[in-house]
Amino acid sequence: MKEITPRGLDITRWYTDVVLSAELADYAPVKGCMVIRPYGFAIWENIQRILDGEIKALGHQNAYFPLFIPESFLKKEAEHVKGFAPECAWVTRGGQEELEEPLAIRPTSETIMYAMYAKWIQSYRDLPLLINQWANVVRWEKTTRPFLRTTEFLWQEGHTVHTTEEEAEEEALTILGIYRKLIEENLRIPVIVGRKSEAERFAGALRTYTLEAILSDGKALQAGTSHNLGQGFSRAFNIQFLDKDGMLKHPWQTSWGVSTRLIGAIIMTHGDDSGLILPPDVSPYQAVIVPIFFDHGKEEILSAVEKARSILSEEFRVHADLREQYTPGWKFNEWEMRGVPVRIEIGPKDVKAGKVTLVRRDTGEKFQPSLGDALKIALQDSLRALSDRVYQNARNFLHSHTVFTEEYSELQQKVREGFVKTPWCGQEKCEGKVKTDTGATLRCILLDEKPEKRAVCGVCGSSATSLVVFARAY
Amino acid sequence: MKEITPRGLDITRWYTDVVLSAELADYAPVKGCMVIRPYGFAIWENIQRILDGEIKALGHQNAYFPLFIPESFLKKEAEHVKGFAPECAWVTRGGQEELEEPLAIRPTSETIMYAMYAKWIQSYRDLPLLINQWANVVRWEKTTRPFLRTTEFLWQEGHTVHTTEEEAEEEALTILGIYRKLIEENLRIPVIVGRKSEAERFAGALRTYTLEAILSDGKALQAGTSHNLGQGFSRAFNIQFLDKDGMLKHPWQTSWGVSTRLIGAIIMTHGDDSGLILPPDVSPYQAVIVPIFFDHGKEEILSAVEKARSILSEEFRVHADLREQYTPGWKFNEWEMRGVPVRIEIGPKDVKAGKVTLVRRDTGEKFQPSLGDALKIALQDSLRALSDRVYQNARNFLHSHTVFTEEYSELQQKVREGFVKTPWCGQEKCEGKVKTDTGATLRCILLDEKPEKRAVCGVCGSSATSLVVFARAY
Repeated sequence: MKEITPRGLDITRWYTDVVLSAELADYAPVKGCMVIRPYGFAIWENIQRILDGEIKALGHQNAYFPLFIPESFLKKEAEHVKGFAPECAWVTRGGQEELEEPLAIRPTSETIMYAMYAKWIQSYRDLPLLINQWANVVRWEKTTRPFLRTTEFLWQEGHTVHTTEEEAEEEALTILGIYRKLIEENLRIPVIVGRKSEAERFAGALRTYTLEAILSDGKALQAGTSHNLGQGFSRAFNIQFLDKDGMLKHPWQTSWGVSTRLIGAIIMTHGDDSGLILPPDVSPYQAVIVPIFFDHGKEEILSAVEKARSILSEEFRVHADLREQYTPGWKFNEWEMRGVPVRIEIGPKDVKAGKVTLVRRDTGEKFQPSLGDALKIALQDSLRALSDRVYQNARNFLHSHTVFTEEYSELQQKVREGFVKTPWCGQEKCEGKVKTDTGATLRCILLDEKPEKRAVCGVCGSSATSLVVFARAY
Repeated sequence: MKEITPRGLDITRWYTDVVLSAELADYAPVKGCMVIRPYGFAIWENIQRILDGEIKALGHQNAYFPLFIPESFLKKEAEHVKGFAPECAWVTRGGQEELEEPLAIRPTSETIMYAMYAKWIQSYRDLPLLINQWANVVRWEKTTRPFLRTTEFLWQEGHTVHTTEEEAEEEALTILGIYRKLIEENLRIPVIVGRKSEAERFAGALRTYTLEAILSDGKALQAGTSHNLGQGFSRAFNIQFLDKDGMLKHPWQTSWGVSTRLIGAIIMTHGDDSGLILPPDVSPYQAVIVPIFFDHGKEEILSAVEKARSILSEEFRVHADLREQYTPGWKFNEWEMRGVPVRIEIGPKDVKAGKVTLVRRDTGEKFQPSLGDALKIALQDSLRALSDRVYQNARNFLHSHTVFTEEYSELQQKVREGFVKTPWCGQEKCEGKVKTDTGATLRCILLDEKPEKRAVCGVCGSSATSLVVFARAY
């Protein structure tokens, strides 16, 4: 059995142990890259299925744009190139020839997409244009960790075009809501929602909205972002439409994305010292059936396993582990470590009683429904109860690791352990001071909460205009 | 309305006109690359859904491996590097640094995958290993055409590992069957099935199986391939397993793939002078509803459209084209050009009679079922009839453009117009002569048909050992 380092001993090693032992991913023989193994990829496929459905229900369509971005395209939007060029991988040779112009591997696709949009959009009738792409992207990172930060990762990037600022703003916020639903309701990870400061917003955006999760080491993880791009890119790429009033105008744009990094957030949020705990909506298997037999009774037990599987397989993702080279005990540990929400044991006593034994991954609680419709109901109940409990635990953790203060000394101390909520004067100088002094960044300006009257900036003590969250981050 | 060049006038221009006008794809501002637009991408999503289901039903799991392949990996299998290195795109700079070792953008993933397989496989218990990947790949091509040959394209690549040669051979042939089913039954494209000659097989493979379609200009298109890789890669990458008999052995491998090129085959096989005809199983929309109203009656007609849509939308992919800036006639032409299998017209007379008018894309035949369950049945029937008819047409074309000969002069002449079936002596020199003299290649050695006794090679006249097909190819 593979050993998992206890979380309390070394959370970084625990994370790596779990990723490797559960066969979610492996280190690739290419700097900073990972291989997403089938068990990890199945989580991504489940995330894709849920999110793709939501995105399409809102009228977006999928498309595919080139991997390569000519250097000159990247340079068209001044802020954008400053943000991304330093971390691009460059193709300089194709076949046997040196290229005249180097091609960046897309770090994000604004520039290559918007060059096409300029061609496709002529009239208000062509708008809104609602396109999404599932793709791989590359950012040349110095320090990497599987899922959380890798040189290549998988994501979806939505890129929409609108006639008015209001419509673009509504789109950016609608998508933020879709992301929040995915992350909170399906992945069971609580997030705080807000807007990025000028210093932290997406290179080239007017406004960046973000969802910030807290991981079990108290650091923040940016789990998804949605940008109102304003007209910056439409000016840079000369996208224009003839409006109803006969005027030629630059449209308003949005872009937004979530990535395989969400899998890192799931691991860090729900795991325990025995390994993973996977939220049922995206777990590759929602239940694993383990037969327990010794010298005799094998046939009856295997036929009960088959019956249980056929009862469940229409509504649930169920796997029967029939491998004969491993003991039941070994399998219990294995599937516990791999985070399957419910284990179903079927042994001689169960068969005799016409029952099966359900064991919940998070609490170890056992249930013994009859092998029939009662099993379906018991599994549904267990999955729902586990799902709610891991979310509640994560919420409690977020709340107990979020401290409000207006005192800079307390801010400096508490930001080492979690989120610090503080009033802010809005000056970049104060934001920068926190970063220099503690390494923490301004994660977001809260949307729903305003500072009290007379609240003062937690850094400089002058009058505050907004409530923000500081934290160290991945 | 966009003009489509008649096929008889210039099939190459017809193809490009259709791809651009139907908004399947557009030329990207990067050499040899295309943008797959939503309408084209939806066809790919439908192909993916069907094929992914079949592949998973056979026990394969999806995974994701890095885009980058170190040059040294590519060099490990001697034939493989010779085949692929000349057409690789190379990353030589990452972030601000020159790389010590150039990284190829994957042209195919054997080498990066098998480096990992060597790590994962220890015992016969780890086999068979059945992995598939949906990914983008890059081959630096000189002449390109949207879908049929592009620098970057999308595909799936399966890579399996087995304990015995028999099992690997069975896998390669099983997948060939899955591909054939997809291409013939879903895409309605007839293919000939065979094995590649030594000169034409995949670089590094023991045996390559292929499916060859004939396009409407008489050229062959390799629509899918499946390779028994033998032990070449497992030796080169030092993949070994401890067998049941206690011996350390090199396993047998397969790899196989189909790509977005299938969309090119659909266009070329089924199109006519009015544009596309899409096979119902993969058409983005199986039916489009067009309301026809003038000064009054709009409400009743729109409510009939809504009723038709709700009756059909559970079982079919249906789109109601409610745009007010276009006339019904314009919409008829538009959806005809875009290849939607059935158009549903709903006008004042239809509403009065409680009926709708179905129009088949391929024959123009009209049907007038009642607006109720009869509509479902009529649409189902029309889709099935269209599906069968386009397949039958394509089969007739394949048969009428396949000529058998043992005479070299006839071979040389007929190979300009289509497939030439001929006995072959098995010598590479004869295969090469055809290529030099006519530009045609040996597409495949037929699996199910053998030459008659005393048959002679269509090139050199000596005794023949197999029956083969020559054709010019994409």
